[in-house]
Amino acid sequence: MASMIASPASESSLVRTARGERGATTPVWFMRQAGRSLPEYRALRAKGSMLDACRTPELITEITLQPVRRHGVDAAILFSDIVVPLVAIGVDIEIAAGVGPVVDKPVRTPADIERFRPLEPSDVEFVSAAVRSLVAELGSTPLIGFAGAPFTLASYLIEGGPSREHAKTKAFMHDEPALWHDLLERLAAIAAAFLRVQVDAGVSVVQLFDSWAGALSAADYERYVLPHSRSVLEHLDDVPRIHFGVGTGELLPLMRSAAADVVGVDWRVPLDEAARRLGGDVVVQGNLDPALLLAGWPVVEREVRRIVAEGKSARAHIFNLGHGVLPETDPGVLTRVVELVHSLGS
Amino acid sequence: MASMIASPASESSLVRTARGERGATTPVWFMRQAGRSLPEYRALRAKGSMLDACRTPELITEITLQPVRRHGVDAAILFSDIVVPLVAIGVDIEIAAGVGPVVDKPVRTPADIERFRPLEPSDVEFVSAAVRSLVAELGSTPLIGFAGAPFTLASYLIEGGPSREHAKTKAFMHDEPALWHDLLERLAAIAAAFLRVQVDAGVSVVQLFDSWAGALSAADYERYVLPHSRSVLEHLDDVPRIHFGVGTGELLPLMRSAAADVVGVDWRVPLDEAARRLGGDVVVQGNLDPALLLAGWPVVEREVRRIVAEGKSARAHIFNLGHGVLPETDPGVLTRVVELVHSLGS
Repeated sequence: MASMIASPASESSLVRTARGERGATTPVWFMRQAGRSLPEYRALRAKGSMLDACRTPELITEITLQPVRRHGVDAAILFSDIVVPLVAIGVDIEIAAGVGPVVDKPVRTPADIERFRPLEPSDVEFVSAAVRSLVAELGSTPLIGFAGAPFTLASYLIEGGPSREHAKTKAFMHDEPALWHDLLERLAAIAAAFLRVQVDAGVSVVQLFDSWAGALSAADYERYVLPHSRSVLEHLDDVPRIHFGVGTGELLPLMRSAAADVVGVDWRVPLDEAARRLGGDVVVQGNLDPALLLAGWPVVEREVRRIVAEGKSARAHIFNLGHGVLPETDPGVLTRVVELVHSLGS
Repeated sequence: MASMIASPASESSLVRTARGERGATTPVWFMRQAGRSLPEYRALRAKGSMLDACRTPELITEITLQPVRRHGVDAAILFSDIVVPLVAIGVDIEIAAGVGPVVDKPVRTPADIERFRPLEPSDVEFVSAAVRSLVAELGSTPLIGFAGAPFTLASYLIEGGPSREHAKTKAFMHDEPALWHDLLERLAAIAAAFLRVQVDAGVSVVQLFDSWAGALSAADYERYVLPHSRSVLEHLDDVPRIHFGVGTGELLPLMRSAAADVVGVDWRVPLDEAARRLGGDVVVQGNLDPALLLAGWPVVEREVRRIVAEGKSARAHIFNLGHGVLPETDPGVLTRVVELVHSLGS
């Protein structure tokens, strides 16, 4: 396995920090750093669908490298989408521009759930190819792999698309717990296989995105979601694992308990308070409000300094946003944030 | 002032509970109990716009009474919309079906802000008329008045409509603090005047809705929002005041400090934990997840029993949802929830 060969990236600042070591500087990357905030991305994506781009190794490679070249971030993150492994096993999903994933036939019945067969490496050969090419290009800069968590995938599948309330999903988990757990076990197996492909092709770190987990109470999260997210991460222990969601102030200790090495924190909980809730000896990632990147530089600078200072309460800190880069963000501000974070030490 | 005359509603279960007394049963009402879940509402609203309905005393009265008749809830809440007082001073806002408030000309400049003149009672005479008629009809059932909080109003005005990220709003508050505070002072004065009209016409309780406050960090909430919400509520001390937002687990003590007698809690924080964060001696309102009303009755019953039990940790508890009734809710389930809450004692 490629992951058994010590790569130059395995001694990088980001990987060492994710393992719990505090280095000379705080490593920094941005969720959605590869994407619509970059003119070079918009130019590449002018033709063709999002899903086509996610399945073309040359496009994956180029789009993944763009923010590394431009911003000097401490990690690349694989350009993909959480629904890619579902599409790869034949689920009928489109990514509608400005909307998000739209599912042709929402999941309701046991027969719907049985369609979620295991993911085979051959289903996502385009990802393996892109990761191998990226690892060769990136050298000592680590590549982060990623997958969508079972709950967030299930919400898209049950609602039929993005949802603010997740009402059908919550009703389904409570009314049909056996079907729910069957669906989430299958989605967990798919996410784990998707991450295993990426690790075997050479990614140095993985991040599990449970974007919508914060819609749940802690009791529901613990009962209906946590076991499945843990089953994604627990067998990927050959790389550091980041676990991220939004609005998860009540869930942070549970999310850590899902075999996570690093806990993502949105902007609602300061990192010193997050470290306190997590028992102190923890690696945190976050937590600049992406909306504040639209404010003037003095505001951004004050926030970056505050976050780096508060991050010292944790064992180690990976600087990031509290959610993805907004499309209207000036990419020059992102570059300045990287420079500022690196100038502040650790 | 009408509010100086002791009304039969002032000794009702809901009003006494809001004052901190624990009675024989837990009072219950539902946010958005008057609205699209009721067929009699949809029939009345088949013709005419939302704003027209909010400005017609006969329609306000009838729509406000519908859920009281049907469900036997312990309070009526005035049928209105948070933008009604803004429209009344001449701001160009429509309520688009399925979208929400849409602002013709988003607020950007000092000149935009100067348009927000004080609200005069004569601007909302239709509300005074409806409240007087409702108080006469309702007898011993209290009527809750309401207004949108300055931050939530400002977000609609600055974004131009509903927003998930509130990015322009957050950038504006940080970049232009003087303009921001000018805008929020004006919105606070309008909300306070709107509630004063309602109290003087006879409402027994008021609720300030800050639906989007949970998008903010506690630091930003405290600096940019709290003083203005407090200035709405602090002079309304002749009635109990409820303060509500969604996703406010980090903000509960701050929201209480805004001169609130009752703190609304969404479904993410259990009421015993909310009471702990608020210091125990507090009246809480909430916190059934409205999505779970779409699940089967055994699920709803289990949740209602849990919430009533956890509510005993507070000084007193008003049963409600954690957010508004979803349009697809079966109203028969709401009626059963009222019966169950009343059967459980307090």
